Amino acid sequence: MARSPEEIAKTSKRVFETSQLVSHQERVEALLSIKAKLAENKDSILQANALDLEAASAEVMKGNLSAPLVKRLDLGKANKWDSMLQGISDVAELPDPNGIISYASELDEELQLRRVSCPIGTILVIFESRPEVVVNIAALAIKSGNAAILKGGKESARTSAEISRVIRIALSSSSLPEDYIQTVQTRDEITSLLHQEKYIDLVIPRGSNALVSTIQRQSRIPVMGHADGLCTVFLDESADVKKAVRVVTDSKIDYPSACNASEILLLHQSLPPDTWIRVAHSLLSNNVELRCDPPSLSLLRASPEVQSLTNFSTHVKPAIEEIDYDTEFLDTIIAVHTVASLSDAVNFINSHSSHHTDSIVTESSHNAEIFCKVIDSAGVYVNASTRFADGFRYGFGTEVGISTGRIHARGPVGLEGLVIYKYVLVSKAEGGHVAAEFGLASGKKRFNHTSLPLNEGLKF
Amino acid sequence: MARSPEEIAKTSKRVFETSQLVSHQERVEALLSIKAKLAENKDSILQANALDLEAASAEVMKGNLSAPLVKRLDLGKANKWDSMLQGISDVAELPDPNGIISYASELDEELQLRRVSCPIGTILVIFESRPEVVVNIAALAIKSGNAAILKGGKESARTSAEISRVIRIALSSSSLPEDYIQTVQTRDEITSLLHQEKYIDLVIPRGSNALVSTIQRQSRIPVMGHADGLCTVFLDESADVKKAVRVVTDSKIDYPSACNASEILLLHQSLPPDTWIRVAHSLLSNNVELRCDPPSLSLLRASPEVQSLTNFSTHVKPAIEEIDYDTEFLDTIIAVHTVASLSDAVNFINSHSSHHTDSIVTESSHNAEIFCKVIDSAGVYVNASTRFADGFRYGFGTEVGISTGRIHARGPVGLEGLVIYKYVLVSKAEGGHVAAEFGLASGKKRFNHTSLPLNEGLKF
Repeated sequence: MARSPEEIAKTSKRVFETSQLVSHQERVEALLSIKAKLAENKDSILQANALDLEAASAEVMKGNLSAPLVKRLDLGKANKWDSMLQGISDVAELPDPNGIISYASELDEELQLRRVSCPIGTILVIFESRPEVVVNIAALAIKSGNAAILKGGKESARTSAEISRVIRIALSSSSLPEDYIQTVQTRDEITSLLHQEKYIDLVIPRGSNALVSTIQRQSRIPVMGHADGLCTVFLDESADVKKAVRVVTDSKIDYPSACNASEILLLHQSLPPDTWIRVAHSLLSNNVELRCDPPSLSLLRASPEVQSLTNFSTHVKPAIEEIDYDTEFLDTIIAVHTVASLSDAVNFINSHSSHHTDSIVTESSHNAEIFCKVIDSAGVYVNASTRFADGFRYGFGTEVGISTGRIHARGPVGLEGLVIYKYVLVSKAEGGHVAAEFGLASGKKRFNHTSLPLNEGLKF
Repeated sequence: MARSPEEIAKTSKRVFETSQLVSHQERVEALLSIKAKLAENKDSILQANALDLEAASAEVMKGNLSAPLVKRLDLGKANKWDSMLQGISDVAELPDPNGIISYASELDEELQLRRVSCPIGTILVIFESRPEVVVNIAALAIKSGNAAILKGGKESARTSAEISRVIRIALSSSSLPEDYIQTVQTRDEITSLLHQEKYIDLVIPRGSNALVSTIQRQSRIPVMGHADGLCTVFLDESADVKKAVRVVTDSKIDYPSACNASEILLLHQSLPPDTWIRVAHSLLSNNVELRCDPPSLSLLRASPEVQSLTNFSTHVKPAIEEIDYDTEFLDTIIAVHTVASLSDAVNFINSHSSHHTDSIVTESSHNAEIFCKVIDSAGVYVNASTRFADGFRYGFGTEVGISTGRIHARGPVGLEGLVIYKYVLVSKAEGGHVAAEFGLASGKKRFNHTSLPLNEGLKF
């Protein structure tokens, strides 16, 4: 009989607790065994995937689904299968995020305190169509020592179910319990799981803004995710033309539907008009629609070079102030606005951006420094494309997601985002240690609070 | 005219943003100026406090308030006033929690990424009666670069209002805006503020479980606090008698109403009966009520030494299993339970404790290590009293609160709990840096991901 959501949550907490003595090496072996079992079962998984694809294609014909979604479902295309399996070994090879000591202090003779990283507990991950995310998240959870409950999109239900079956088989012959990774299929189950704050410690939604916001509204469990990606590039008055053209163009067109693509371009009013013309020329040549404020629009209308472009009349438009500077286009559209100063640019960004990633193009290191200090975003860049905001590019080896929250983890989140810490206090004194012996009164002991080396490990 | 809660929240966000260039030195000066102004205005503050005390005493007479609460209100008693002012200089002297680099990597030649600690933003702190908390929290907020909105208990409203007035005066002649610390007085305002997730980034409730839970239910803003303090001491079979007596007694009686006092005592079934008798004797001599399971009760009933104590008949009782092992007594009561093994102790603690702080008394370093690994609590102790779970004792200089949450900060939280980080990416390459140049295809650049020294600071 299928488990109720409460039983699923309880089971997850239980297997988290009972697996605390499973070593990092055993976790790595479990990962490699999952990789091997997936390879063995490639046929059955691709068969399930074919059924999902067929059903999805039918929905596309009926106009109920978009064609790009079907593309994202396809596990067979190009090197997707191989890179899914490679991803498991990549995660296996990352350093263990647990057991890292970030604070060590001798409180008193023979009384040592250490802060040690450890798993958070149980995580619920909700994602949309791509079925390989099951494998990715399972790998991250196993590596970081968290038990996981996963829910994929209904379009990939057959594929996810088959992958989950194979993961269970692999786990059943590992040191981890087979319930370490559980999957659920329906939205109703998720609604119930979002209320299991007694057993579930963190919810990670991966998908659209709508998904993330809905979950944040429904649950009292902490949610790690990003709500929006409204990134800005600001061309300061001293911006170098080449940097301006390259950074703006890449930020917009490298992958327009990504959350780290730029949606807003700010121009300093003293920026030489030719710089803006060159940037606009590059954007228009890449078929980007420009929604311009009056000053930036006038400059384009005065430029024969820009006007001669075939898409000038269709792709250069006045911006609608109330809408265009607060919209995540996720498309080849950019809203352009002119500001009077660096300080105006900062105010504009802090009030319009989603605090994801914002970039300044400038030759002034002084302005660069001010920008990075006062822009209240997870990523603050100088002469670099906003598209660098990504866990792989940052060197984390893998990415749990991108967080626009302001506690725990911010920006691209690697394995570190799946761990927290505990304090280990060990007394080796005769008679142990008691608090009543310490104090300010005479005859009381004082605390030493002497730093200890961090690299010595725990001592019992 | 008084501001609406939305205006208060918006103002807080605005002053947070506009004060990002205020230096650490200027923040320290603001703190010292607050200290000086409070000293200057001691009379008016103590007058307001006298009115609060008078009103509270009247409520005690009517039976509406408890006498200890009145004691906590009194700013004039003993050295409370001086230690409140001393607390400001203590916070001022702590190292700046911002600007600390925890990750630095060269992504490519002339492209450097650094993760730098920075304030969270705006915090809402809700606390109960003690009026000096206003000063304490204001100091922490100013030091860490967060704007704050404070709400104290209604019993201390006059004192808090007067302290806030003085803080505003001090801020008005500092580099920080006077709205940097705002106070609200009514519960209705709090209800509205808890819905200002657009402007408020973190809620810190300091007070009873009821307060914390109510706030968690009401708000979508992240909450940092502790719900319960159900701490346990486990006497392993090898427990040293002296350690057992000292650690258990201190954990229970040093300050019974604190969240880090122990409420449960677990006995290994192979613990020599005399050890338990000695522990029970110490607890009873300190007038602690013992609620015992059948095995521990039988041992006491068989001990002439314990039976001869005058409070034996009133203070030794059978435990009610469904209640006593899940109750935070906050009083001189302890629930005693016998377990068959270390593993049973672990399961018992993981399912009954509030994941705050749990301690093992053992002579086995192997068992100590297992206990610390598998107990899923913020503090895991060996031969030490649970009462050490405290920011001052840990050496943090000050304490924001204690968190039993599992993300961001866990256990006693120092200034570090009030900061997060941002990623600063700086390109110094000719032409800046764009993402499209990187990839696995031939002709594309690969990322370096070379670690950089952490102590070099930001480079623009």
